[in-house]
Amino acid sequence: MKIVVGFIDTREGHAAVDAAIAEARLRGGTLVIVNSMHGGSREREEDYVSTAEAFEALQERLRSEGVGFEAHEYVRGNTPAEDVIDAAREHEASLIVIGIRRRSSTGKLLLGSNALDILHDAEIPVLCVKAST
Amino acid sequence: MKIVVGFIDTREGHAAVDAAIAEARLRGGTLVIVNSMHGGSREREEDYVSTAEAFEALQERLRSEGVGFEAHEYVRGNTPAEDVIDAAREHEASLIVIGIRRRSSTGKLLLGSNALDILHDAEIPVLCVKAST
Repeated sequence: MKIVVGFIDTREGHAAVDAAIAEARLRGGTLVIVNSMHGGSREREEDYVSTAEAFEALQERLRSEGVGFEAHEYVRGNTPAEDVIDAAREHEASLIVIGIRRRSSTGKLLLGSNALDILHDAEIPVLCVKAST
Repeated sequence: MKIVVGFIDTREGHAAVDAAIAEARLRGGTLVIVNSMHGGSREREEDYVSTAEAFEALQERLRSEGVGFEAHEYVRGNTPAEDVIDAAREHEASLIVIGIRRRSSTGKLLLGSNALDILHDAEIPVLCVKAST
């Protein structure tokens, strides 16, 4: 079985990777890690968009930990949410793992539009994890 | 390990129970099923609030399937989200499973306030599942 992770180079993103690795080991699966590049446009480098350097470092980590994975960098101009959903469909994945932020002290809405879109559009279960405090 | 399920007597709620049972078997855990009664007030019987009859039927199912569980009906007047979060804390749970709705044809926001609150306030991973089509 395959587990899709929408990568982002933040504490939440790394928490998602940690959780996805644990799930892959638990379920005997492999990872599909997704980086949305938006054709290099910097204006859209919000959540779920990471640098190529961070994405390469992630792949190094997975190789060193012996975790089976495929890496996809999407530059099609879709939103990160669309890329994650497309990757899940294309790989017939069984699970999506995303990192979400903790509630701030002001209590304002924390789920970004990409997280909401993934939750709304995913046809498979979505595991939402936070960074440890 | 313990898995908290906020029960609701809908297709999404039953999908959440199905997923939670699978997770309990996979991880060697038991379930904590939560029903928010709101002191019987019918005006708040929205999502994550189910009848006592449906909750009893769920327990019958879990017993017949040999799934270890604890059942909690909360009548403290808190929101269903608060009850789920409190149950997760009280039982030192490792995972929360909730059912969420599919995007409608009109595309309007589908995550209810309880689902959003659980995602915002949970200190542990939240697995979001949908009813099968």
